[in-house]
Amino acid sequence: MVSYSAPLDDIRFVLYDLLDYDGRIAGLPGFEEASRDLVDTVIEEGAKFCENELLPLNRSGDEEGCIFENGVVRTPKGFKELYEAFCEGGWNGLALSPDHGGQGLPKTLQFVLTELICSTNLSFGMYPGLTHGACNALELHGSDEQKATYLPNMIHGRWTGTMCLTEPHCGTDLGLIRTRAEPNGDGSYKITGTKIFISAGEHDMSENIIHLVLAKLPDAPEGSKGISLFVVPKFMVKEDGSVGPRNGVACGSIEHKMGIKASSTCVMNFDEAEGYLVGEAHSGMAKMFTMMNVARLDVGMQGLGLAETAYQSAAAYAKERLQGRSLAGPQHPDKPADPIIVHPDVRKNLLTMKAYNEGSRALAFWVAMAVDVAEKHPDAAKRQEADDLVALMTPIIKSFFTDQGFETTNLGMQVFGGHGYIREWGMEQLVRDARIAQIYEGANGIQALDLVGRKLGQNMGRLLRRFFHPVQAFIEENQNDPQLAEFVAPLAKALSRLQQSTLWIAQQGLKDPEEAGAAATDYLNLFALTALAYMWARMVKVSLAQTNGSESNGQTPEFHEAKLATARFFFQRLLPKSSGLFAAIMTGKAPLMDMKEAAF
Amino acid sequence: MVSYSAPLDDIRFVLYDLLDYDGRIAGLPGFEEASRDLVDTVIEEGAKFCENELLPLNRSGDEEGCIFENGVVRTPKGFKELYEAFCEGGWNGLALSPDHGGQGLPKTLQFVLTELICSTNLSFGMYPGLTHGACNALELHGSDEQKATYLPNMIHGRWTGTMCLTEPHCGTDLGLIRTRAEPNGDGSYKITGTKIFISAGEHDMSENIIHLVLAKLPDAPEGSKGISLFVVPKFMVKEDGSVGPRNGVACGSIEHKMGIKASSTCVMNFDEAEGYLVGEAHSGMAKMFTMMNVARLDVGMQGLGLAETAYQSAAAYAKERLQGRSLAGPQHPDKPADPIIVHPDVRKNLLTMKAYNEGSRALAFWVAMAVDVAEKHPDAAKRQEADDLVALMTPIIKSFFTDQGFETTNLGMQVFGGHGYIREWGMEQLVRDARIAQIYEGANGIQALDLVGRKLGQNMGRLLRRFFHPVQAFIEENQNDPQLAEFVAPLAKALSRLQQSTLWIAQQGLKDPEEAGAAATDYLNLFALTALAYMWARMVKVSLAQTNGSESNGQTPEFHEAKLATARFFFQRLLPKSSGLFAAIMTGKAPLMDMKEAAF
Repeated sequence: MVSYSAPLDDIRFVLYDLLDYDGRIAGLPGFEEASRDLVDTVIEEGAKFCENELLPLNRSGDEEGCIFENGVVRTPKGFKELYEAFCEGGWNGLALSPDHGGQGLPKTLQFVLTELICSTNLSFGMYPGLTHGACNALELHGSDEQKATYLPNMIHGRWTGTMCLTEPHCGTDLGLIRTRAEPNGDGSYKITGTKIFISAGEHDMSENIIHLVLAKLPDAPEGSKGISLFVVPKFMVKEDGSVGPRNGVACGSIEHKMGIKASSTCVMNFDEAEGYLVGEAHSGMAKMFTMMNVARLDVGMQGLGLAETAYQSAAAYAKERLQGRSLAGPQHPDKPADPIIVHPDVRKNLLTMKAYNEGSRALAFWVAMAVDVAEKHPDAAKRQEADDLVALMTPIIKSFFTDQGFETTNLGMQVFGGHGYIREWGMEQLVRDARIAQIYEGANGIQALDLVGRKLGQNMGRLLRRFFHPVQAFIEENQNDPQLAEFVAPLAKALSRLQQSTLWIAQQGLKDPEEAGAAATDYLNLFALTALAYMWARMVKVSLAQTNGSESNGQTPEFHEAKLATARFFFQRLLPKSSGLFAAIMTGKAPLMDMKEAAF
Repeated sequence: MVSYSAPLDDIRFVLYDLLDYDGRIAGLPGFEEASRDLVDTVIEEGAKFCENELLPLNRSGDEEGCIFENGVVRTPKGFKELYEAFCEGGWNGLALSPDHGGQGLPKTLQFVLTELICSTNLSFGMYPGLTHGACNALELHGSDEQKATYLPNMIHGRWTGTMCLTEPHCGTDLGLIRTRAEPNGDGSYKITGTKIFISAGEHDMSENIIHLVLAKLPDAPEGSKGISLFVVPKFMVKEDGSVGPRNGVACGSIEHKMGIKASSTCVMNFDEAEGYLVGEAHSGMAKMFTMMNVARLDVGMQGLGLAETAYQSAAAYAKERLQGRSLAGPQHPDKPADPIIVHPDVRKNLLTMKAYNEGSRALAFWVAMAVDVAEKHPDAAKRQEADDLVALMTPIIKSFFTDQGFETTNLGMQVFGGHGYIREWGMEQLVRDARIAQIYEGANGIQALDLVGRKLGQNMGRLLRRFFHPVQAFIEENQNDPQLAEFVAPLAKALSRLQQSTLWIAQQGLKDPEEAGAAATDYLNLFALTALAYMWARMVKVSLAQTNGSESNGQTPEFHEAKLATARFFFQRLLPKSSGLFAAIMTGKAPLMDMKEAAF
């Protein structure tokens, strides 16, 4: 069975010891209340809620799935009550605007909560997750009236939100959408068209569902420049803010999917539904990216969350399952066999999971803090700097974390042997649930194109410097520390490979964008490995300092020993992959592009 | 939707042009009839049967699954009739003994058929697959009476077979089994115990089910040396060979699995069931490996079969799906968008699949021919040589092909984007079906241990020479050919890495078996990549010769151009992974073993 308890020790280590939450976030305007004490309490309560309420419904939710009947979607047993408790506990509005009833806590805290939710019940997490995306878009781009009409109920969770982008013939290429919006003359629009793959598009957990819909106005320019964003409620909202009659939007069917079965994935038919323009006409694409960028980081956290549960479950099983003997001779001669954790290959699987998870968590929270700094720092230059880092790291976190989430859940399943393939053990569900994260919110290949095609060149490479400079500074500062040499040297080598390939892509890509495209995925992965190496080197430095007697935040000496051992595994066993990636990048596009289309 | 047509061109290329089927197999004693004409006919008919009969029931089989009610297992709709047609067509006994009604064709042909079956309906293929394993064990180890009693019906397929090994508390470590066999005094035994994960343990497609069961006699030595093999029919067989009363074996339940849902996976309860010893007492482990080794190669073919379907489906989709524009500017300005095959990253996914699949097919059939040579060659030294190669390559084929099967089906699914995650499209089923192959018949970590722990050192490294020598000879023979230089040089480099790490493992492993264990998985993958590089270099040589005018077996110039382009992709984009594997191997066991158990 799946074993999970929230990794509070590691979360605290990353927030407080590694990333200086107190100095960087607690002091920002608006976060005066968000002291370490409050944060600790929130995380502990969140952990309890996820462990005790979300996790028990994860397996049954997968088995039951959502049921579609007569236009209505029934979520699995217990989900409605669970969602109510979630909203009543204030979890929905944790980091949303206090102007409309949210708690206004740092986004960093939301990242932590998102990890815990995804570890325990990803399908459930989809419902509030989509609402958050919609709230962000309305907060940033909605009129005051729209904010007042929708946000309080959405932030509470009484109403949920969706993002209606994809159509049957287009996903990545939204310039092709056919959904149209015709002016009613009174400022409202008639929205008509079909949207597919709409998560939380229809369900039985909320009073109302607020759809944010991409559509084209009659005078729209061709392609993605002609897209506008509309808000379309399932039920009309009356003058007094209460729920009125049904609008012209209905669920046509739900998808039968590989995983996240308790999350409803809907075909939504808009038939002259009344909708309201959000912001300017034809500016929908940019607004869509507001939702999308937050959602991409969220999806990255899905990978990490599932991977953490897979790791904990596999580690527990490997300590319990007796099978065979250690290659070094029986370790438990009193027992019929040794636990399988004695085997190097099992340890390799577990350490791979642990090293990716803890490295990713550090990287995620580093970026999460940048999200807060970008929003709240009084100094505009600091805000810009932080925003640059978030923009740069978003495709990396989305793509690498979800690829690792899939790899790691599969490693966890492998540790369980045949039992891993059996549904009741819960491990294969993690794999199926993890798989979608590599696809939605921009398939991972698209993330890689975003990185090389947009982020690399933006403002003459300014975004890149937000990563390269601190890594370079860290290397220079620590390269003569003998305790750190085994980590700093391979970090420097990885960084040098990353810089060489960056230069190569920049030069080649200018002449021929296909060269950049051909390098994109390998480059993203090389970037991610380097970023994890940076995080691991920084963690080691903190752990060594604490082992050597400096201030500790409650971690045991064993915690720091494990950090050191895991770091060594990362640098010796995982980081070497960067050499193959580097070699593949430098071959250029010919091996991909020379093959004739007909030969495939 | 899934697209598949049997890759007959490539199969013929590998059999005839690359591997000289006529010279090496058609001439062997017993295969006088198995001319190229006959082989072509059999493969073409097999392809038709798989495409037209097996494939149409693959999706419905997955949706319906097997149903267990009152001790009876119902296979999905159409499976019973399909199985009847399969047996009537003579497909079951294709390469089984003609002494008992089989067609006695080369095992090479069975490998080809297995690929086609796994491409079109893996779940269905499990039923005859298990029967084959049981037939092999009875042919080699059964008494004449046992052979006469069981084999004719099993070879026809009227009766099916199973392999009953695993118990709830033991899978890998069969020394722990608790199922016991008590002598009845008349030469028969009472078998009592519970077996789990028994594929085809119970179903409605055959008159009788013949279980091959591992159990312990009362006087059995401890551990794996005390295991005996028994044959236990579901229905007793009467003197006249007809089916008699029910034996004391029954299905207790079936598993709910991630995939291969139309294959019944049973808990089998033996309650004083009558059984008969196969061969000597306490010699069951070795006999089990007779079944197991054949089964391991079969399972490797499952990976390849599913991967081929994934590749063909993804390639077809990538040519059809219009989305976005080429980075080099619109390729089809008349259409709303370009097909996604214009994108480098989509091509990278497709070429990865194609390069692994075609390389694996060549490697598989090379080893398949060695299976035939090991059985039929008049020269004992040649037989031994071939048997060595099979023994060496079995864990590599099982582990690498199934890992690639999983990776490749996932790449195929990724090409489909969101549609890949939806059940009705069929791509996610390939992924779920492929996942089990990494686990059963010895999880892939066990294969790696088999390679480094048993095969490497066997007879002073004699097995290794069966691979190293021909590769070395190929390199020496072709290193001065300017057309081959771009392939031979990286092959030589990969071989050198493989040889260095072999030496390192041999030396370190002697002192400390955990060192070998810590290197095992990375070493197996390095070995597999080198073997694929050897196959690709050989294929290129043949294709170049044919392009330059030598005899061709019907392939078009485009076929050979595609071989060359795919080979270049393999050498430039995939083989570089070997550097990271090599570096990881050479770090030794410390990064895996230094971590304390409690720290996981």
